[in-house]
Amino acid sequence: MAGKSTRSSPMKGGDGQYSYAHNSSYQVLLSFVLYMNQREGLEIAKVFIKEAIVEKLGIKSSSLELFTIADLGCSVGPNTLVVVENIIDSVKHKYQSIDQKKEAVEFLVFFNDHVSNDFNTLFKSFPSDNQYFAAGVPGPFQDRLFPKASLHFVHCSYSLHWLSKVPNELMDQNSPAWNEGRIYHTNGPNAVREAYSAQFAKDIESFLNARAEELVHGGLMALIIACLPDGVSSQSSDFAFIDLLEATLKEMADEGILTEDEVDSFNFPQYNPTPAELGTLLERNCSFSIERMEPLVRPARKVSDIQSVMSMVRALWEELIEGHFGNDVLDELFDRLKNKIVECSILSQSSKKQVGEKQMVELYVLLKRKACPDSLY
Amino acid sequence: MAGKSTRSSPMKGGDGQYSYAHNSSYQVLLSFVLYMNQREGLEIAKVFIKEAIVEKLGIKSSSLELFTIADLGCSVGPNTLVVVENIIDSVKHKYQSIDQKKEAVEFLVFFNDHVSNDFNTLFKSFPSDNQYFAAGVPGPFQDRLFPKASLHFVHCSYSLHWLSKVPNELMDQNSPAWNEGRIYHTNGPNAVREAYSAQFAKDIESFLNARAEELVHGGLMALIIACLPDGVSSQSSDFAFIDLLEATLKEMADEGILTEDEVDSFNFPQYNPTPAELGTLLERNCSFSIERMEPLVRPARKVSDIQSVMSMVRALWEELIEGHFGNDVLDELFDRLKNKIVECSILSQSSKKQVGEKQMVELYVLLKRKACPDSLY
Repeated sequence: MAGKSTRSSPMKGGDGQYSYAHNSSYQVLLSFVLYMNQREGLEIAKVFIKEAIVEKLGIKSSSLELFTIADLGCSVGPNTLVVVENIIDSVKHKYQSIDQKKEAVEFLVFFNDHVSNDFNTLFKSFPSDNQYFAAGVPGPFQDRLFPKASLHFVHCSYSLHWLSKVPNELMDQNSPAWNEGRIYHTNGPNAVREAYSAQFAKDIESFLNARAEELVHGGLMALIIACLPDGVSSQSSDFAFIDLLEATLKEMADEGILTEDEVDSFNFPQYNPTPAELGTLLERNCSFSIERMEPLVRPARKVSDIQSVMSMVRALWEELIEGHFGNDVLDELFDRLKNKIVECSILSQSSKKQVGEKQMVELYVLLKRKACPDSLY
Repeated sequence: MAGKSTRSSPMKGGDGQYSYAHNSSYQVLLSFVLYMNQREGLEIAKVFIKEAIVEKLGIKSSSLELFTIADLGCSVGPNTLVVVENIIDSVKHKYQSIDQKKEAVEFLVFFNDHVSNDFNTLFKSFPSDNQYFAAGVPGPFQDRLFPKASLHFVHCSYSLHWLSKVPNELMDQNSPAWNEGRIYHTNGPNAVREAYSAQFAKDIESFLNARAEELVHGGLMALIIACLPDGVSSQSSDFAFIDLLEATLKEMADEGILTEDEVDSFNFPQYNPTPAELGTLLERNCSFSIERMEPLVRPARKVSDIQSVMSMVRALWEELIEGHFGNDVLDELFDRLKNKIVECSILSQSSKKQVGEKQMVELYVLLKRKACPDSLY
């Protein structure tokens, strides 16, 4: 559905002189800048979350002895710790203002991320004077991770665009979504983007169904997700970095450093929906009411330092790429990618241009768990 | 108290020709063999735990939707996974035999160990078809780690002999327990052993107080701890490996590889109580009833392979020693220790001797959380 609404002609020549990247660089970069400045986005969301807890949290003070929070896709911090402390302070404030005697609420925080996350480092970063009990929970958040009705507040930021897996059709020679010679939906036939979109829809459905079981009625879920702006038909215009990665991989296959098979079997497991597309998926799940859905507005940032960009690119992609291509080629691969980024002058362009209406939208969404008579459970 | 009952003359010459080790080697080794064959001890305890759950677990089936287990000092597995699965199978069996319809119980398992434990490795070893929700909890188990009344079953094996810290008095020149020139209570004045014993008592008290808050009434706690046999006056006869470590450290200080200060400020944070000593400490806490307390009896094992012994010694001690002396001296230190172990022929002696009554006792203890009108909380 979303795929249809954003149908457009595939781009020509994503590699070679990186002319595509030349022409649409600043939007692309912005999706990275979002990651680089998550803290800034989280600071804005902080106020939203405080408001959410004061106005929307539907849990009675009298029955509350333990308040349980989950941060899904927490990574290694320190952002997750800041988020969690904000939630706890807001909850304490709310219940203490309702009931002066209400001091005995305990807090349990589950920090979740993939099993490959560095939980050891996360655990070492916990403050020693913790005001909460802390636990790490490994596993994909599209699955059930917690007992039934055990959570009061779920937070998930900058993570939902990662797919649980690459859509099967991309590897199927008999499918119109066969993604031969590409690593993403940019520059491919529309069927490829539709396959990505369908996988995202499945993932969001699983995510919401799992959380519907785990959240208590009246509990809240705050999400931040980077979306493509509504009405932008250039679904191929926001991922120049992935295109540059594709060009790098092809070059390395041409030179025999990687095999064709290795490159052909790699697809990038990320999907950024439009706000409208996401809204439709959220509305489809009757366990939650959408209490708020709006962009986080924050000033654009210049990023012209290639070293910072590469650190961030490696931080975000290294595990994924190492998992597929192995450790031996990593440095070579990122060196080549770096050269391509410099060559196509994304960075200098981005610092010259002003941010237009086409930049990635960081969408803040607040969902509330409701009783759901129509659902099957 | 325990210190007084086991008073004895300090040994002479713990280093040099390792004559002490010569004379009392097999008991010493046995405490290591316990660690090397934890799985065997756990297999025996498995039956005890099954019985405990059937006969002693005081939680009504009707009210039970979530059963929460904590394994304290879990290390990296696979033992912890085997233990947890046994507990879950036993609980399922119990409740299904009471109530055929009782299928809906969910299980949440907290795996706890020090923050320095390798949780990343532990998490990767979780089976993909887990029948429970799993979470890692970093931190010392002498502290509160979980919310009030949130646990139904606590397991803690082969961990309680580790002290939360070295007793302060050992470093105090004005204390009779000043432990100059030694790294343990063997060969020292009685005040040193008393300081160790007092620290152990404090740790057990904190451990029990924390668990008393965390366990639901009727919940169970199964412990396995290596104890010195009652009535053995030779408190200095079970720790030849530690004495050999002391000799190694002194030798390295004499040669200028380590400083005197480094060696003087190191003390080994382990204490093995006698069963009577432990029993007194357990009885002192009125929140628990002692439901069972008996040795795990299992066949003695010959261990003559120095490589296996060294792997195990390093696995157990490396982190502790690295934390104090740094990484650079580790290989040298363990090489020297290995030579001393070979030289004093502990291993060949242990394989010739039969196990006598002086071996370390692996004590299995089952505690049940009771309502406690006399306690302060």
